[in-house]
Amino acid sequence: MTVSPGTTLRQLRARKPLVHQITNYVVMNETANATLALGALPVMAHAREEVEEMVGLASALVLNIGTLSEHWIEAMLLAGRAASGRAIPIVLDPVGAGATAYRTETARRILDEVQVTVLRGNAGEIATLAGVDAEVRGVESMATGLEPAALARGAARQLGVVASVTGPIDHISDGARTLDVANGHPLLASVTGTGCISSALTGCFLAALPEAPLEAAAEALAALGVAAEDAAAGADGPGTFHARLYDALAALDPDTLDGRARISET
Amino acid sequence: MTVSPGTTLRQLRARKPLVHQITNYVVMNETANATLALGALPVMAHAREEVEEMVGLASALVLNIGTLSEHWIEAMLLAGRAASGRAIPIVLDPVGAGATAYRTETARRILDEVQVTVLRGNAGEIATLAGVDAEVRGVESMATGLEPAALARGAARQLGVVASVTGPIDHISDGARTLDVANGHPLLASVTGTGCISSALTGCFLAALPEAPLEAAAEALAALGVAAEDAAAGADGPGTFHARLYDALAALDPDTLDGRARISET
Amino acid sequence: MTVSPGTTLRQLRARKPLVHQITNYVVMNETANATLALGALPVMAHAREEVEEMVGLASALVLNIGTLSEHWIEAMLLAGRAASGRAIPIVLDPVGAGATAYRTETARRILDEVQVTVLRGNAGEIATLAGVDAEVRGVESMATGLEPAALARGAARQLGVVASVTGPIDHISDGARTLDVANGHPLLASVTGTGCISSALTGCFLAALPEAPLEAAAEALAALGVAAEDAAAGADGPGTFHARLYDALAALDPDTLDGRARISET
Repeated sequence: MTVSPGTTLRQLRARKPLVHQITNYVVMNETANATLALGALPVMAHAREEVEEMVGLASALVLNIGTLSEHWIEAMLLAGRAASGRAIPIVLDPVGAGATAYRTETARRILDEVQVTVLRGNAGEIATLAGVDAEVRGVESMATGLEPAALARGAARQLGVVASVTGPIDHISDGARTLDVANGHPLLASVTGTGCISSALTGCFLAALPEAPLEAAAEALAALGVAAEDAAAGADGPGTFHARLYDALAALDPDTLDGRARISET
Repeated sequence: MTVSPGTTLRQLRARKPLVHQITNYVVMNETANATLALGALPVMAHAREEVEEMVGLASALVLNIGTLSEHWIEAMLLAGRAASGRAIPIVLDPVGAGATAYRTETARRILDEVQVTVLRGNAGEIATLAGVDAEVRGVESMATGLEPAALARGAARQLGVVASVTGPIDHISDGARTLDVANGHPLLASVTGTGCISSALTGCFLAALPEAPLEAAAEALAALGVAAEDAAAGADGPGTFHARLYDALAALDPDTLDGRARISET
Repeated sequence: MTVSPGTTLRQLRARKPLVHQITNYVVMNETANATLALGALPVMAHAREEVEEMVGLASALVLNIGTLSEHWIEAMLLAGRAASGRAIPIVLDPVGAGATAYRTETARRILDEVQVTVLRGNAGEIATLAGVDAEVRGVESMATGLEPAALARGAARQLGVVASVTGPIDHISDGARTLDVANGHPLLASVTGTGCISSALTGCFLAALPEAPLEAAAEALAALGVAAEDAAAGADGPGTFHARLYDALAALDPDTLDGRARISET
């Protein structure tokens, strides 16, 4: 499988896949706008009465536990099981797993009951779910006992997913192969929800390349990273960077993206 | 009735009407900011315990079903019935009607139980509610069986509302007369929630011109369209366009708005 | 106690305290981004199952009643009592108190059952809670029967809190001493949620200076006001001002902040 974010982006823009997102209150507007700027169609729906029907229209499902409560967990499980049954790819973003028992248990329950394709989180969250020592403070990863590429590989094997561990360098593994992505910019860490955006874009790339989730997950992070590099040029801080990030996602050029993406196999 | 968005905007800014919005999680911040930038006062409240009291303070009510669940439907019906009883104008935005049965049925139930003044949606949503063949994909209108001006007229007659069908050209009809609005910019479609913003601004214009809902609905779309034209000049993409849209709404000049508004009767 | 926002800001950035926020849907993204831009870590969590555990990790708790419902009130009380028991400072933002009975009663209930450190609101909201005549329209303060410095002093004495009454000039009192803050910019009033942001930043400053809540509350408002002054320079309206506000918060220079802060004791 060739890793070519430009090719996948071109397909995504031609197909405009619908990406169903059940995500947290803090970032809904932001992940919807990032999805739209990239070239896919977002839809947010969380009612038990409609999630199974809505996910049936979608080409990918993104589950994000950033602001949990009982009805939302139920909706995530319903949508997740429906997507699993139809082989619709699923991204899980276990926001804050490790910070509270409720988040850790909910993420584990989704991993148990739903066919998660890509688990996208920071090192602390993924380490928690893989049973490795980790410190998570609120929703920030502080420290883990494992080097992140090894963590991605181990989590992928143990949990049966593509593990996508984001950080200054991202590590994505299906347990057999591991890809690193070296794009991005420090300003991403100064805006809330950029991790959630990376999960949403992972859903977009999976929708366009469902047959190769390892590659799709890495390409999504490379695309976001390249856009962040563009957005940072000329930004005066986190606020203007944030506005420019959508400009940059919309302006991503499939013809130059492959040359700019810094994806390597380790 | 003369169509003069400048006159209505001047009245709106003098009166600063309170516009009660029960809307979806994705766009709450955006519709509140658009309301404020235009010159009205937004208030968001959805608890069954307070919606009837809150809407009693308001000059218009905006109901938007973009992220439904049971408690929210109940709140919309309570607020809607209270507003109907006091002759407070009501805008319904049936986000995603046609995409799932839950959304279609909820929009129908609100139309049945509440005195909706203006129904503002895309062609697919309005066609679904008027019983015309339509394709809705998530929250995007894909295709309808009717030319949109005829759709607006037919929906207005059948549903007993002012139907406001937005698209590259907007068509607003009370069943007898139909107005077209040709303002706007393609970048509006690249930002999530601009449809919801158009519904919120429709509520603002109705609050200032409650005696003429057809004109108010058209003027709101013209005002948003002119602001979008201004915002697009100098924008680098959807993110900077989005930020500049609030600047442009706040800077709308009542003295030049009538000359720039492209509203015509068909 | 010396009032030195620069010193407190330096400590805050060194410690990066976690600030737990249970706030309204409209402004969650904005208060999280302001917290992050200033240099602290935001976490949003509202489930009854986790709020007590989450607040135990935090250095301050911010409660904001802007979009209430029963589960959220219950979560605020649970988190508030847990924080009170651990002497974690608590900010209450009584959004819309005075507009509906539900909001007024909820704010009173939190003040009764929780050890609120700082009550941050507009004049109408604070007057309502202090039993002074006030007019609140939606979430906007219209008029009160008391001069605001006297209102702050009276509310502080009666409610046993630091009362932080924001407006063109802010008045912060612990009942004995009253500080005025004369920083800020009119554009703050044109963006929704800037009041909520001031409450979130009050939580950040309290986390860094828990031993001096009067000073912390005033310093937070001075920091936001100075950032607003910077953001307004070069802004074209509320939208670009809003984006630039996060830039300005991130760029706040502790070395010059004390000289620019206009805090005085009355």
